[in-house]
Amino acid sequence: MKAVYPGSFDPVTNGHIDIVHRASRIFDGVIVAVYEAPPKNVLFTAQERVALFRGAVNTLDNVEVTTFNGLTVDVAREAGAGLIIRGLRAGSDFENEFEMFLMNKNLAADVEAVYMMSNLQWQFLSSARVKEIAQLGADVRDLVPPHVAAALATKLREIGP
Amino acid sequence: MKAVYPGSFDPVTNGHIDIVHRASRIFDGVIVAVYEAPPKNVLFTAQERVALFRGAVNTLDNVEVTTFNGLTVDVAREAGAGLIIRGLRAGSDFENEFEMFLMNKNLAADVEAVYMMSNLQWQFLSSARVKEIAQLGADVRDLVPPHVAAALATKLREIGP
Amino acid sequence: MKAVYPGSFDPVTNGHIDIVHRASRIFDGVIVAVYEAPPKNVLFTAQERVALFRGAVNTLDNVEVTTFNGLTVDVAREAGAGLIIRGLRAGSDFENEFEMFLMNKNLAADVEAVYMMSNLQWQFLSSARVKEIAQLGADVRDLVPPHVAAALATKLREIGP
Amino acid sequence: MKAVYPGSFDPVTNGHIDIVHRASRIFDGVIVAVYEAPPKNVLFTAQERVALFRGAVNTLDNVEVTTFNGLTVDVAREAGAGLIIRGLRAGSDFENEFEMFLMNKNLAADVEAVYMMSNLQWQFLSSARVKEIAQLGADVRDLVPPHVAAALATKLREIGP
Amino acid sequence: MKAVYPGSFDPVTNGHIDIVHRASRIFDGVIVAVYEAPPKNVLFTAQERVALFRGAVNTLDNVEVTTFNGLTVDVAREAGAGLIIRGLRAGSDFENEFEMFLMNKNLAADVEAVYMMSNLQWQFLSSARVKEIAQLGADVRDLVPPHVAAALATKLREIGP
Amino acid sequence: MKAVYPGSFDPVTNGHIDIVHRASRIFDGVIVAVYEAPPKNVLFTAQERVALFRGAVNTLDNVEVTTFNGLTVDVAREAGAGLIIRGLRAGSDFENEFEMFLMNKNLAADVEAVYMMSNLQWQFLSSARVKEIAQLGADVRDLVPPHVAAALATKLREIGP
Repeated sequence: MKAVYPGSFDPVTNGHIDIVHRASRIFDGVIVAVYEAPPKNVLFTAQERVALFRGAVNTLDNVEVTTFNGLTVDVAREAGAGLIIRGLRAGSDFENEFEMFLMNKNLAADVEAVYMMSNLQWQFLSSARVKEIAQLGADVRDLVPPHVAAALATKLREIGP
Repeated sequence: MKAVYPGSFDPVTNGHIDIVHRASRIFDGVIVAVYEAPPKNVLFTAQERVALFRGAVNTLDNVEVTTFNGLTVDVAREAGAGLIIRGLRAGSDFENEFEMFLMNKNLAADVEAVYMMSNLQWQFLSSARVKEIAQLGADVRDLVPPHVAAALATKLREIGP
Repeated sequence: MKAVYPGSFDPVTNGHIDIVHRASRIFDGVIVAVYEAPPKNVLFTAQERVALFRGAVNTLDNVEVTTFNGLTVDVAREAGAGLIIRGLRAGSDFENEFEMFLMNKNLAADVEAVYMMSNLQWQFLSSARVKEIAQLGADVRDLVPPHVAAALATKLREIGP
Repeated sequence: MKAVYPGSFDPVTNGHIDIVHRASRIFDGVIVAVYEAPPKNVLFTAQERVALFRGAVNTLDNVEVTTFNGLTVDVAREAGAGLIIRGLRAGSDFENEFEMFLMNKNLAADVEAVYMMSNLQWQFLSSARVKEIAQLGADVRDLVPPHVAAALATKLREIGP
Repeated sequence: MKAVYPGSFDPVTNGHIDIVHRASRIFDGVIVAVYEAPPKNVLFTAQERVALFRGAVNTLDNVEVTTFNGLTVDVAREAGAGLIIRGLRAGSDFENEFEMFLMNKNLAADVEAVYMMSNLQWQFLSSARVKEIAQLGADVRDLVPPHVAAALATKLREIGP
Repeated sequence: MKAVYPGSFDPVTNGHIDIVHRASRIFDGVIVAVYEAPPKNVLFTAQERVALFRGAVNTLDNVEVTTFNGLTVDVAREAGAGLIIRGLRAGSDFENEFEMFLMNKNLAADVEAVYMMSNLQWQFLSSARVKEIAQLGADVRDLVPPHVAAALATKLREIGP
């Protein structure tokens, strides 16, 4: 069975990459679905976010990265994927995940959802936190792959203080 | 990939059965692993708990029910299962699940864990709650299969007030 | 004793309606108080939100719908209502409710507050979620009354993508 | 409408008394229902717990104190009370309350439940905490009425260290 | 050892002042560090926020108030302070505090962090709540010192409705 | 200022040791206070728990380990310590800590409390979890010092299955 892993990924972090690696060993294929126009502001364009994620998973044969808009259950159906994967962090909003789970079940009972816990070292890591501390001038090379750290530095120089 | 679904199941509820049905469609096989001697007191013997669970999933070809003792990661390895399934309820202890996840990762990095959310109607249902209200004389036929409701009534008569 | 049920109601959902129905059987009267200019952005005008709520409770004799600004305790006092009703959902911020409770007690010790739990099927439903999935093109007729679903469709067409 | 306020009350604290005072002003009558044989161990007998609660609310005309066993919804029905009152504390288990709410709704759809927040000074107060610190020799006269503090001292001397 | 107490303090509340008083008795010195340009909107300028805080702690010899930008661990290092103090409220986001703690440990392992619980009466008090109810016309003199209440009234008149 | 660090420590874990190391650098002295007869069952005697903790901190000059009974605020006063240190874990009960904080403030306003967050790797570690997995036959040498792992193995052999 193939699985969709949806998110904004602005930018991809080591936590996301860990989930995709582990999911690629459990499922026949993983489709990383980058949300093109999420309701919150994004730092990177959709194409940049796709390229950064691809650069992080190009050693995995059964993983592809694409963009989407609209409902995640529609992405899953169009891709012939029977389920959606979501990462769970102690710092994330469990209730919010459950609301989304219920809405999706309501909209598409045939699309299943499974959750994977982030490993300990990425448990309190989020794209928002990475951007926040990068903007304050801190080193983020422990939190994202080198090509993402470089892209962040370039982007932050471009947009200025 | 085969999956292990461990628990005390004292007794199995409609919530557990829902998880197994959904998991059996995602994974190649599901091994329900009934914890023989959990640290908390149990109402039913291990053999009774196995029989009640079997009675609830006998229409599913790729599901088997067995007992275990010791570590769930060892059960998974012995059964040739690459992962453990756990149900998540809004009413359950997310932090406790995460502690177990980390301990298991520490003990057996090769055994993966995935989580499935209980459907809304079983979201606040637990074996403990079922036993509690059955003991108070309430009808539990909405919460467990008929053969479990009957076994509960018999058991509660046996042990008396 | 009469009760005030305050909120933004942008738009009213089946969860709000369920609370009003149940409250109208407990208290002598219920005054639905629609917050005219809440700090967060609203999709519907105050008059639209009042009309949508009225359309949902017009079979209840002891319920009226009105607008307010300022403090909810002042609304209660002006309406001769001795208490404020709030719905509680597992997905809502309990701590936030408690902060509001304390502030209100501080401002008006004579105005009491009581809380009612949303029924299971509306437990994870919010106006924000309804708007979010309606904007993604999903069907919301299980979540709001037909006249609200129609108003949402019209409004979303008006404001465009 | 009359309301039932159920609990173990082992012993009654200033937090319970505050809820009853406030509820007695909202509802036509309040029936304090003392759980005779709760699943957890109790320090005081049911009759002692009733007497201690009565001593704390004897100035309120529309409040009576009684014992019960079995389901709280049955107590409500037998007493002709349309609803059950529960206190909510930041320190209490909201999810547990919701599980009970759902079970009760399932067992008796006609019995309503309303929740009242404890006032700030009693927000982190529980019978268990009072007993714990009384056993350690601390003064509890800020937390319970004088006659309860005296009964606690006597009881703890009786059962010894 | 000296300690840094960072925050937006827009404006300082009785809760912040209570933490500083208590910290000044534990540590050799306390440096209140007012975040000049926090990501969220502020009502008062950095200089106003500093002046309001100074007005509240001018009786404490070992407390100074200053502004900062960038990382709090850098402020601590520059000030020769070995640790950062944070207040903890039941109503605040514990997970968010933990994320910040981990990021800071990552950025500066030599800077320690200690947490102090707000006293009960300030447990559900925040600058955001104070501004919100002041804007609704309520009296906030129980929540902030007199000179802050006066500054709030003046500021709200200036910016108009 | 000297600080008391109270607990059952049944047995001491790497998480406790990390807190003591960090606290010993912040405060003039740390008194580890081992609760002789906690309300929950203990595996090790008070003397064993003291010896195991001493074996883990004997390189720290300003740390001593002792036993106590009764109130932690009394221990602090008798030891001339102005404050109590508590570790905070994402997996621990924040509300419970706050209840204890308030009770202690009530009993002894002059004894302060500060909280330190466990480092990430010990964030989900507890004595209870260590005993649980040791009893299941798993290796705990990543979680406790070698002499504690050895003592656990011996003790578990003594008490048998």
